[in-house]
Amino acid sequence: MIIDCHGHYTTTPPGVEAYRNAQKQLLNTNPDHFFEKGDVDVSDDEIRDSIIHNQLKIQQERGTDLTIFSPRASWMGHHIGNASTSKAWTEQQNDLIHRVCELFPNNFAPVCQLPQSKGTDLKISIDELERCVLERGFIGCNLNPDPSGGYWSDARLGDRYWYPFYEKIAELDVPAMIHVSGACHHSLDTTSSYYLGADTTAFTQLMFSDVFKDFPSLKIIIPHGGGAVPYHWGRFRGIAQDKGLGDLELLVLNNIFFDTCVYHQDGIDLLLEVIPTKNILFASEMIGAVRGIDPRSGHHYDDTKRYIDKNQRLSEEQRLMIFEQNAQRIFSRLSI
Amino acid sequence: MIIDCHGHYTTTPPGVEAYRNAQKQLLNTNPDHFFEKGDVDVSDDEIRDSIIHNQLKIQQERGTDLTIFSPRASWMGHHIGNASTSKAWTEQQNDLIHRVCELFPNNFAPVCQLPQSKGTDLKISIDELERCVLERGFIGCNLNPDPSGGYWSDARLGDRYWYPFYEKIAELDVPAMIHVSGACHHSLDTTSSYYLGADTTAFTQLMFSDVFKDFPSLKIIIPHGGGAVPYHWGRFRGIAQDKGLGDLELLVLNNIFFDTCVYHQDGIDLLLEVIPTKNILFASEMIGAVRGIDPRSGHHYDDTKRYIDKNQRLSEEQRLMIFEQNAQRIFSRLSI
Repeated sequence: MIIDCHGHYTTTPPGVEAYRNAQKQLLNTNPDHFFEKGDVDVSDDEIRDSIIHNQLKIQQERGTDLTIFSPRASWMGHHIGNASTSKAWTEQQNDLIHRVCELFPNNFAPVCQLPQSKGTDLKISIDELERCVLERGFIGCNLNPDPSGGYWSDARLGDRYWYPFYEKIAELDVPAMIHVSGACHHSLDTTSSYYLGADTTAFTQLMFSDVFKDFPSLKIIIPHGGGAVPYHWGRFRGIAQDKGLGDLELLVLNNIFFDTCVYHQDGIDLLLEVIPTKNILFASEMIGAVRGIDPRSGHHYDDTKRYIDKNQRLSEEQRLMIFEQNAQRIFSRLSI
Repeated sequence: MIIDCHGHYTTTPPGVEAYRNAQKQLLNTNPDHFFEKGDVDVSDDEIRDSIIHNQLKIQQERGTDLTIFSPRASWMGHHIGNASTSKAWTEQQNDLIHRVCELFPNNFAPVCQLPQSKGTDLKISIDELERCVLERGFIGCNLNPDPSGGYWSDARLGDRYWYPFYEKIAELDVPAMIHVSGACHHSLDTTSSYYLGADTTAFTQLMFSDVFKDFPSLKIIIPHGGGAVPYHWGRFRGIAQDKGLGDLELLVLNNIFFDTCVYHQDGIDLLLEVIPTKNILFASEMIGAVRGIDPRSGHHYDDTKRYIDKNQRLSEEQRLMIFEQNAQRIFSRLSI
């Protein structure tokens, strides 16, 4: 069985964008508008269509089996509006993921976004996490380390600000993928400099923190192949050593995992070589940041299964870990 | 001949820090204090000592010949004080580099920092560049894409704000290494998330700009192995293609070059495999961000020459390009 641990619902029916646009219009006239959840006008048939002709079709073409599926990351938009904006939007987005997974229980497993909002405490996010995990069978969450959309105005991931949330995900035994949303800072571009920079920043903040001492069972996934981290593994190992933090691998690799959203053979080969196999989860982020076909290979850039298949060094046991066993271990609530 | 294109004067005698501390004290009482250049109390003997027992010693131990040498990057501190603070400090720092290169003309070639200061125009930087290049034989400069120290409050590198500077470096035919300074933003750590994130951000801003159309002869070096870029070369190629920008390599590789400050074998192997040899410049950033010895290899993490020597795929012609010929071509004012 092949489990893709990183897919977003990027092909939502038009009613979803209409709901969000209505929120934005209300915010235009009153930034403090208090949002009720309301309704999203999307039928089951529309959801079926949006999945069958997109993610499910590509799953089948590529020979993968199950996608761990969450709302579109660039649309989480935690910087938009106020706490009630984010709460209503997030509940709707998570409900849609739940519907997808109810309609296609063999192909998709649900991961939630969180109703974060810059400068607010995480109580609302904890409540939504519990609703999703305990009432609706979600198996993980996406945690945004920068709800300000590129300004990084909130606390570092090592700060006590995040501790109630860490406590809850440890208690529920669900992993958190650290994933920013769309950039609203002029210097950044969402799917390139912002995503990759945020992955590297999140890793660094955690490496320099006591989070894993304080929560030894925490499971954190850094997406997009870990940003710059595996490519600069020697730099990070050396920095940890110079700062007296000891062996980087002992420091973080009981708790941090990297996905395989790296869109060329040499990048995947490096990831597989440098990072222990137990810390790597298969993922493609399909349909996501890069949608084209690489003229050099004749295949989609984001068809990451091909790169893993073609890697010369992996044993079959290692491939099994990356494609299936690691995901089953880390997403312990996944029942397949 | 082996040319290391990226070294900083990180071992300055105590008079340098004393000068900077005196500036900071004056700023504490008056942020608008107007600084005169004044004097740095450092003797030639102190400079000799600081180099002979450090960078020169390591050059000789590692078998490299010439370091392209600039002021300590993390001390540029363009966010500190006002425009006159930065002007006085920068002139002093560049004068010190000039003195090092006069004392050791066979081992060091000078590159200047710039008196940037957030929110000010680049006229002062252009003047200092001309002083350094035309009067003192400097062969390049370090351009800070974020003088705010992590807030990225200035314009993107594609903005017209930077054009007078690009025009001047094109006219003088000197390359610019894009290098941030110390991070003052709480979310960032200078030599890890900030440096690597800034490299990726700078690349992305340039890739999405018209800079190389408008200045086809511009030579830009992205340090630290290009941040996350070569590891994610497929992602960047795919994003360029999806956005209708065409072939990424045609788009940027006439103008952008990467150094080899990647501190492990697998990282260097990826860089050498993915990026055309003509775009790679040997560098170690010695003595810099990582000073320890890798217990796995028994050698310094930043002894990047070893990784290039050990790479299995390079021909001798390619090694010669990386170690020498590319630097001579790009630093066209280098006379050796």
